[in-house]
Amino acid sequence: MKSIFLLNDPSYPLIYPNPLPDEIGRRTDLIGPVLSAANWRTASAEARQAEAIFSGWGMAKMDEEFLDFFPNLKIVFYGAGTIRSFATEAMWARGIRVTTSARANAESVSEFSLAQILLSLKRAWSQALAFREKRTDPFTQPAPGNVGSTVGLISLGVIGRLVAERLRSYQHEVIAYDPFIDPELAAELNVKLVSLEEVFERSDVVSCHTPLLDATRGMLQRQHFVAMKRGASFINTARGGVVDEDAMCEVLAHRTDLFALLDVTVLDEPRPDSLLRTLPNVLITPHIAGCLGPECRRMGQLMVDELDLYLAGRPLRYELDQARAAITA
Amino acid sequence: MKSIFLLNDPSYPLIYPNPLPDEIGRRTDLIGPVLSAANWRTASAEARQAEAIFSGWGMAKMDEEFLDFFPNLKIVFYGAGTIRSFATEAMWARGIRVTTSARANAESVSEFSLAQILLSLKRAWSQALAFREKRTDPFTQPAPGNVGSTVGLISLGVIGRLVAERLRSYQHEVIAYDPFIDPELAAELNVKLVSLEEVFERSDVVSCHTPLLDATRGMLQRQHFVAMKRGASFINTARGGVVDEDAMCEVLAHRTDLFALLDVTVLDEPRPDSLLRTLPNVLITPHIAGCLGPECRRMGQLMVDELDLYLAGRPLRYELDQARAAITA
Repeated sequence: MKSIFLLNDPSYPLIYPNPLPDEIGRRTDLIGPVLSAANWRTASAEARQAEAIFSGWGMAKMDEEFLDFFPNLKIVFYGAGTIRSFATEAMWARGIRVTTSARANAESVSEFSLAQILLSLKRAWSQALAFREKRTDPFTQPAPGNVGSTVGLISLGVIGRLVAERLRSYQHEVIAYDPFIDPELAAELNVKLVSLEEVFERSDVVSCHTPLLDATRGMLQRQHFVAMKRGASFINTARGGVVDEDAMCEVLAHRTDLFALLDVTVLDEPRPDSLLRTLPNVLITPHIAGCLGPECRRMGQLMVDELDLYLAGRPLRYELDQARAAITA
Repeated sequence: MKSIFLLNDPSYPLIYPNPLPDEIGRRTDLIGPVLSAANWRTASAEARQAEAIFSGWGMAKMDEEFLDFFPNLKIVFYGAGTIRSFATEAMWARGIRVTTSARANAESVSEFSLAQILLSLKRAWSQALAFREKRTDPFTQPAPGNVGSTVGLISLGVIGRLVAERLRSYQHEVIAYDPFIDPELAAELNVKLVSLEEVFERSDVVSCHTPLLDATRGMLQRQHFVAMKRGASFINTARGGVVDEDAMCEVLAHRTDLFALLDVTVLDEPRPDSLLRTLPNVLITPHIAGCLGPECRRMGQLMVDELDLYLAGRPLRYELDQARAAITA
């Protein structure tokens, strides 16, 4: 089977570092060079016969022209997360299969989220910043701590579930809001399902893992933040657009006891006049929860694992269908 | 058997919250009220017959006067960590037994350390602070990440071992310096033993878990910090005095690529003119890694567990002898 790489230049060595290209080359007839969204039309006649594309960040939009150009294409191994930037109706209509590395990215996000949850329950960020900025006596903040506190998860998709699994070896009560989850699965995860309101009212730390969809845009509103417990923290590693950001900032401006750890914001670079830049109780990390630097090899490795299943004619572990893709980040 | 509580007022409800006093009362003849280092001389005649003291932060120094005052004393259940503030030669000479909750405190420290290691490998703190303080473009810092990076542990005592255990479910290489550890135990922990120099030279993050003893004071010196890898982080949750702090600060002032996360410093409140307060690549948390707030109940619970073993005449799990106490934090 012929295969090609198609993704952007910086991502290729991150997602497919040595020895991953060799491993793909041993399993398939890998036709070089690595193509990109900018130059795929330069592909050789042989590359155009590819049955499989190994991709990642910077995949080309799979419109009719693209699909006509690669007439034998059967599957895209997308070594990254959301497929929204390139998936099309035409792709599904032609029966092109897609499997992704969202699970590998989720692993990185879950590690980051666990770390932020553990530190938030000690109020580590707010105390360290208060000391650094000489705003308050840092030794006076009572902290919920990591024994018997309540952790609230918003959404139990791939990432939320991994976070819940990681939390099992700690001593928190874990509650979650997810209208779509099987209650049996929640029970297995030792997570109690509650309303969105209850997550905010009862949790010492709320961690958001909701995909950004039409149905979830602005889902977290003023009243949710207003209802938060004294001294609680809000962590967002999902997407900024899930939050009504202006309302959240207004609440945080009054509720100085709260703290927000935002790895994502509506704009990657908040406007110069945004409260996000000045509120003492907001800390922004620059979208680093997911696979970062050498962590990206997890995504390429997962696609090699999927390739093995594909070549063996077995079901893929992370294949998406159109219905599933519609409710996934 | 008669028992009493003796510790400071704020610690009593933290370390022994309900229902722990009741549990101790069901197992022993618990004589009130709760005594402190300031008022133990006011103990009733009955309290003076105590065989066991349940203690924690604020234990009285066990000098001859104290030991004469409690002539039947056989054991101190010390629901906290280091016994240096109260243990005496006289105590050992009289055969008083001591068991501590260092293990429970270690659990909290290990959770905090894990979180800081995971975040350091993403350079979360340095990137978030750079963005907050508008010093640099936060998106340009390459990060070692949590796949294939090297974590260096200094000392594999109770805490270092717990950190190593927690790290097993991640994908780091773990190396450690500990001249006293059994190599077989290190192998079981999947930790490679190396020299102190090598820990600093090879690690993407170095986490210090060394007790402060005469032999370890100032053990981490200028040359160690100078040898750190580009972009590496240093975490200290042990004791400030283990580090030559002035030398470390001078190195950090030049090596702005490094980052130090200090939960402990030589002085709890660094002097107003200390570089620790102004270096952009130092962040101080106010000694919160150990049991904090509700986490303290872990320490009381552990002492109740030890009490059960004591009453059953079985070996205690966390008893110290004089030799062991000499090399423990």
